[in-house]
Amino acid sequence: MKIVRFAFENKQSYGVLAADNQITIIDGDIFGGHYKESDRKVSLEQVSLLAPCQPSKAVCIGLNYHDHAREMNLKLPEEPLIFLKPSSALNHPGGKIEFPPISNNLHFEAELAVVIKSQARKIPVEHAGDYVLGYTCANDITARDIQMHDGQWTRGKSFDTFLPLGPWIETQLNPHTVNIKLLLNGELKQSSNTTNLIFKVPELIAFVSQVMTLYPGDVILTGTPSGVGPMQAGDTVTVEIDGLGALSNTVIRG
Amino acid sequence: MKIVRFAFENKQSYGVLAADNQITIIDGDIFGGHYKESDRKVSLEQVSLLAPCQPSKAVCIGLNYHDHAREMNLKLPEEPLIFLKPSSALNHPGGKIEFPPISNNLHFEAELAVVIKSQARKIPVEHAGDYVLGYTCANDITARDIQMHDGQWTRGKSFDTFLPLGPWIETQLNPHTVNIKLLLNGELKQSSNTTNLIFKVPELIAFVSQVMTLYPGDVILTGTPSGVGPMQAGDTVTVEIDGLGALSNTVIRG
Repeated sequence: MKIVRFAFENKQSYGVLAADNQITIIDGDIFGGHYKESDRKVSLEQVSLLAPCQPSKAVCIGLNYHDHAREMNLKLPEEPLIFLKPSSALNHPGGKIEFPPISNNLHFEAELAVVIKSQARKIPVEHAGDYVLGYTCANDITARDIQMHDGQWTRGKSFDTFLPLGPWIETQLNPHTVNIKLLLNGELKQSSNTTNLIFKVPELIAFVSQVMTLYPGDVILTGTPSGVGPMQAGDTVTVEIDGLGALSNTVIRG
Repeated sequence: MKIVRFAFENKQSYGVLAADNQITIIDGDIFGGHYKESDRKVSLEQVSLLAPCQPSKAVCIGLNYHDHAREMNLKLPEEPLIFLKPSSALNHPGGKIEFPPISNNLHFEAELAVVIKSQARKIPVEHAGDYVLGYTCANDITARDIQMHDGQWTRGKSFDTFLPLGPWIETQLNPHTVNIKLLLNGELKQSSNTTNLIFKVPELIAFVSQVMTLYPGDVILTGTPSGVGPMQAGDTVTVEIDGLGALSNTVIRG
């Protein structure tokens, strides 16, 4: 099932997207489990898609692709390295990415995002799947110069607009067998498959939830494959993942 | 004015704390500006104090005390270094701090916290004061071994219970002239004055809001003075700041 969040006639709603691009509006809370499809429909062309969830935080994973580690000649990490993006960084399908005036080096990072279904604290690996609503595309936008200048990655990754998510949440995906790509103005820049993930989704949920409680709608960004690179104002950047569609954003001067 | 948030008879409320320890319950939203003191009162002894705000994020500042920099022989920073604590780390006056099973070195860090009043984006220094609701005590609890192991500070500082705030928000404080102390089981461990702050509150608000939008109730933790150190299960740790009272918490094994 493909869950979208969208704005239509000044109202924000959740809906189920069908193959014919018709959206069936959902009544209730997709996270609480108490929701149902209504008899009201709109077509995808009529609405503005929004990020499909509203995370209280995005927990991001550093180096997590075997191919990226090989390319960089890096030793494989023994455990995940985590950092945070704040809710204020959230961006939407088609939303503008603002190039900060204080940066000269803005990078894309295509990532598979896990959307959390229900509150998760200290969850063992074997139960982690119960806490997943589904998956969506993410772009971990990074002011690389600021990230490197600070040493701490927070500032360079936390600017407003630096967390595009979407276009939908797929609830039926096998997250460990999908192709993940990034295109910059249509040119392929990143291309890998999530078989290359060093730490798999259940391990990440177990690891993160041992530290901090995950809330419904929170996301875990599972890391980026090789090929990250710079963007300029005017560029269009697209993350594509099998089954999750394409998340496109345009860069503007902030 | 001292603003408290508290639980009483299974309800959470805001109130104004008077010198006689009577709390006048507030109707409305303390952040929106549309609130008033009701004619209902409870006494401090009847209620459980909660963290006086519910931040979407805590933005924390690294090295920001002249005395701490001198003690460590560190060069003064040219600009603030920021990191984040998630909302899931929030803790309350009197709340238990959980010593994570995966850490062997849990530290206190007494800090002055700025509570944001209204949404703040790209605010110039000269207008920063308009966005401050007030100030409260904070303890930037840190699993020092995990912080140092990871290099990125996020995990070591983001465990549940690692962000005690309180006991109240003082709206009338001059934040740059107050004594700040930390006591461990009654013994003085940190003692400084906010005259020693390298970056003052308006500069911090301007700096942070240039990166990320601050929301009502968000907090900026302004850094810790010299003297940070370890705690053990069973310890009681207290942050005291002139005009802001005492924030006490007890450490338990997590």
